[in-house]
Amino acid sequence: MDAYKHVVQYYETDKMGVTHHSNYIRWMEEARIDFLSRIGWDYARLERDGIIPPVTEVTCRYRKSTTFADEIFITVSVKEYRGLRLVLAYEMKNAEGNTVATAESEHCFVDTNGKPIRLSKKFPEFSKVLEELADANGAAAE
Amino acid sequence: MDAYKHVVQYYETDKMGVTHHSNYIRWMEEARIDFLSRIGWDYARLERDGIIPPVTEVTCRYRKSTTFADEIFITVSVKEYRGLRLVLAYEMKNAEGNTVATAESEHCFVDTNGKPIRLSKKFPEFSKVLEELADANGAAAE
Amino acid sequence: MDAYKHVVQYYETDKMGVTHHSNYIRWMEEARIDFLSRIGWDYARLERDGIIPPVTEVTCRYRKSTTFADEIFITVSVKEYRGLRLVLAYEMKNAEGNTVATAESEHCFVDTNGKPIRLSKKFPEFSKVLEELADANGAAAE
Amino acid sequence: MDAYKHVVQYYETDKMGVTHHSNYIRWMEEARIDFLSRIGWDYARLERDGIIPPVTEVTCRYRKSTTFADEIFITVSVKEYRGLRLVLAYEMKNAEGNTVATAESEHCFVDTNGKPIRLSKKFPEFSKVLEELADANGAAAE
Repeated sequence: MDAYKHVVQYYETDKMGVTHHSNYIRWMEEARIDFLSRIGWDYARLERDGIIPPVTEVTCRYRKSTTFADEIFITVSVKEYRGLRLVLAYEMKNAEGNTVATAESEHCFVDTNGKPIRLSKKFPEFSKVLEELADANGAAAE
Repeated sequence: MDAYKHVVQYYETDKMGVTHHSNYIRWMEEARIDFLSRIGWDYARLERDGIIPPVTEVTCRYRKSTTFADEIFITVSVKEYRGLRLVLAYEMKNAEGNTVATAESEHCFVDTNGKPIRLSKKFPEFSKVLEELADANGAAAE
Repeated sequence: MDAYKHVVQYYETDKMGVTHHSNYIRWMEEARIDFLSRIGWDYARLERDGIIPPVTEVTCRYRKSTTFADEIFITVSVKEYRGLRLVLAYEMKNAEGNTVATAESEHCFVDTNGKPIRLSKKFPEFSKVLEELADANGAAAE
Repeated sequence: MDAYKHVVQYYETDKMGVTHHSNYIRWMEEARIDFLSRIGWDYARLERDGIIPPVTEVTCRYRKSTTFADEIFITVSVKEYRGLRLVLAYEMKNAEGNTVATAESEHCFVDTNGKPIRLSKKFPEFSKVLEELADANGAAAE
């Protein structure tokens, strides 16, 4: 799957002259929404259907600084999924192909009242896609 | 009335080494919510009551740069109000008392369906306070 | 000239369910940098050459709300330029072609010490391009 | 030590009606700078002295959502420090005393050229304070 591209904006830099670290967390969201849309989960539509995947944890490891006008290529993969909890992994590379950051986000699924949803029951088809991606990813890692 | 104080955060600076100009627009919101609360309009409560004052226009004139750890003191006043449209004026000073920015925001009032509200009808008491502040401000300007 | 495209991010929305108004000021910067680059002023390069165009004033008039996943098309034009002060105008449209916001930004030019530069002396070629664009724009407006 | 207080701003919420998760990463920075200043490390001064503590990793676990106008109380402690790498831990509570998030940030120390610094050599006094706080924290954890 193609990487998601984010171009670093001037307003994303800080007085150290580099991208402020908090922005990578926002790029994860951009790449995640793009990824979910590509595997059949149109974020806006499912939100209208009343399913929301709040972030329960994020981790980001910064390996190389980036700055204004840099192109960042972000690849998302399903690290873990067994029906309830989803863990996504992110690899961010610059135009030279160097990894600038690696990250993970963990999600649960809730309805509009904030009640946890078992995705495999409510959205079996989408759930199956996530399972297959998690399995493929696990196999690749072995 | 006391000025609202905002301390410039590191993440609000940019690679020029100064506060990114977009943040002043956010500080206007901080100061506005504080101001409205002081004159009897608790923002959170009125939002629950279904009245929302969207921003219809902002202008900010940058006079002196600011940077990380600077204390900014923001004074808000009612520039214009006649029941429908509210114009607020902002003066931002640094700790030395120098004006760093002057700004204005224009607002209308809508209900939760986005329909315009005549504030003087729906919230006559709050509307009267705004009128008096606008009059006092106009008199002071003459 | 083609419009600059910004897709509204989830993190740019607020609890009213729409794009927070401060983000339009950031989109103006995105579109401005793109515009300047297209007319021969590569922002990153000129910044390295020690010329910086700080924002001295912004105005944004919000006409129609936007929200997550909306595509915004931003056209930039030179409203005023006579060697010292540059005024750019922005028109932001949604995918349906409706204007969602109009805006202006004013800039001066300074060197890395913050001293004002007369652009027409330091960068005569780029200055001439701006003049021609301002003239063409003025003629079109008549 | 007193907790650092952050009041959630309107512009920090998203269309889910709660604080966008990326802002917690920024609050960590606010609390960290406040904490370092209280234990004798004035951030602005040391930055002038040419020592910078870039973030090499962040983790944030979201436990309870927060929203506009909530008061967040953030306690920072030194989790690990042995001269090179600093790990800080954060606990964020709401006004009711419930933990809304727990987090960690990892830092190294570099000079203005980006070269790693051994803090214990360059800033022995400050380094000693960090060591003592790490030891006290470790003892408390046992």
